[in-house]
Amino acid sequence: MIPTVAWKNNHVVILDQRALPGEVRFLDCAMYQEVAEAIRNLSVRGAPAIGVTAALGIALGARQYAETHPEGFPVYMEDVCRTLAATRPTAVNLFWAVERMTRVMAGVSTSSFQSIQEIQKRLQEEALAILEEDLRVNRAIGRFGATIIHDRDQILTHCNAGALATAGYGTALGVVRSAWEQGKQIRVFADETRPVLQGARLTAWELQQDGIPVTLITDNAAGALMRQGRIHCCVVGADRIAANGDVANKIGTYSVAVLAHAHGIPFYVAAPSSTIDMETADGNGIPIEERNSAEVTCLHSGRVIAPQGVEVWNPAFDVTPADLIAGIITERGIIAPHALSEHFSSTSF
Amino acid sequence: MIPTVAWKNNHVVILDQRALPGEVRFLDCAMYQEVAEAIRNLSVRGAPAIGVTAALGIALGARQYAETHPEGFPVYMEDVCRTLAATRPTAVNLFWAVERMTRVMAGVSTSSFQSIQEIQKRLQEEALAILEEDLRVNRAIGRFGATIIHDRDQILTHCNAGALATAGYGTALGVVRSAWEQGKQIRVFADETRPVLQGARLTAWELQQDGIPVTLITDNAAGALMRQGRIHCCVVGADRIAANGDVANKIGTYSVAVLAHAHGIPFYVAAPSSTIDMETADGNGIPIEERNSAEVTCLHSGRVIAPQGVEVWNPAFDVTPADLIAGIITERGIIAPHALSEHFSSTSF
Repeated sequence: MIPTVAWKNNHVVILDQRALPGEVRFLDCAMYQEVAEAIRNLSVRGAPAIGVTAALGIALGARQYAETHPEGFPVYMEDVCRTLAATRPTAVNLFWAVERMTRVMAGVSTSSFQSIQEIQKRLQEEALAILEEDLRVNRAIGRFGATIIHDRDQILTHCNAGALATAGYGTALGVVRSAWEQGKQIRVFADETRPVLQGARLTAWELQQDGIPVTLITDNAAGALMRQGRIHCCVVGADRIAANGDVANKIGTYSVAVLAHAHGIPFYVAAPSSTIDMETADGNGIPIEERNSAEVTCLHSGRVIAPQGVEVWNPAFDVTPADLIAGIITERGIIAPHALSEHFSSTSF
Repeated sequence: MIPTVAWKNNHVVILDQRALPGEVRFLDCAMYQEVAEAIRNLSVRGAPAIGVTAALGIALGARQYAETHPEGFPVYMEDVCRTLAATRPTAVNLFWAVERMTRVMAGVSTSSFQSIQEIQKRLQEEALAILEEDLRVNRAIGRFGATIIHDRDQILTHCNAGALATAGYGTALGVVRSAWEQGKQIRVFADETRPVLQGARLTAWELQQDGIPVTLITDNAAGALMRQGRIHCCVVGADRIAANGDVANKIGTYSVAVLAHAHGIPFYVAAPSSTIDMETADGNGIPIEERNSAEVTCLHSGRVIAPQGVEVWNPAFDVTPADLIAGIITERGIIAPHALSEHFSSTSF
């Protein structure tokens, strides 16, 4: 599998997912500002991948420090962190990663360039540790999640919570990969996921690359598919999970959860513990990003498909209440959404 | 409002809806085969409009008869009718219109060219009568339907059941227009309706033309909108209504109905009685058209948005069970789906 993001020759190299599946191309970022822009413009997306990329961006930013006075470094790094944290509001992994990188700098002297070099080195190590951890965490999520997948199951997923949404392997698609590696004959139905089409462009592509059977459907077809008894479970990712188990994820996830509930189909969320935000009591407290109306009114080609000036409501995420969720598949096990507080403390940052 | 389809200078003139909203262009059909192709390729769509267009196509076909022997006319017309009936399988209005046109020919002598001319004239009159009736029927649907719309209501609709789906005025959007004409301050939320985007391209456009407030959303956003309490009722059209009240309509309608039910929002279907098929006992008997996978994998521009060779499931319609429907708004009144048999006989053809 092609890595989503990597550290190469002291640059951050990002797979430009906007060009998939037609073209595999990379952004070679020499500046943290380019990394921030890549997160903003969805070149890299998916909560865990955003966290990892932001961490690498901070490490990159630290190396860019070009002032003659070492004392300016802390204020400069605050700005680097602020810039990366301000890219997107919903995925809590972003703030988790920035916080973790900030902790590396805490209490370290910046009295000399020698100590700054030491911090730069430690930041790079921490970012790479976050990346490596994400891979290990996804494998663990996959192992736990595979227990709920039976041979011959047909699994519905929404958006892309795959290798491309993480440092690799994936969360929801990590569960799928793990079940597949165990020899279970499964098929994934991938919602295309308008408006940005991550299901069609990314999920269908990465499963096809791995030879895992996949059928692409419009978001509109999910209900009819469930009514025909052709879906056995739903597994999606998450951008933020509140303390009470409410889950923010790609717009349309809530509809899938309601449909699954109406058909008695178990609906699971797969996410690393870095997606769990014990500081936010419930889904009402999760900030939901609203994106440009052009995502809806213009196709990728730039072709306009709606009348000029039409009003658009384009939230990027919605909130699925805990009641609709059978379990949250984490690297620590499958946890009932209402039992999160028994497993995660509110000081996980 | 621009007419969807018209009879002009002995041609059938069809508004080419594939080009909307970017361009208003017309197909000038001199042959019934062109009319059939326009139905097949979605230049004209919407169950009532398909019925009207097929009727005009049969009248046009009758005029094309160029054999030297009048005796060949009945067999020729059978072929014309068969060609038009074979264009699309789900909308029952098509078969209703073909049947009605066929009845005009029944028992009429074709012993001379004079009698054929008489049939051609009668077929043209019948097709125009079907067109005029559709307009009147839609106004009646609008009047009955407006009683369920309250001032300040926000109404969700799916696909396009508007003027563009009929001879004019619309069914679901006829209800909206009628409420608006009564001075009710309403807003329509239009699902974009993938894959063919009739909501974005047609519903948003025709409401905007009439100055009726409309907000465009992706199909994925409907659930979140309902959860926020921002939808007061749903009104959609129908392609075929079975005797037990089950309704086939554009793919994704079923999902909207399940979501509406989960949120306690009334879900209405607006359709002329020509959409009611008392010969089909329930939704399981309604043939569901599956369309080309390219509708999903390629955008209008032809740009490919899914990996090559990916398997696609692309049903054009789904079935909403009667239990989820608050009422069927017809030209004869608002009827409970389970009470259809009290109002419509099984010999309505």
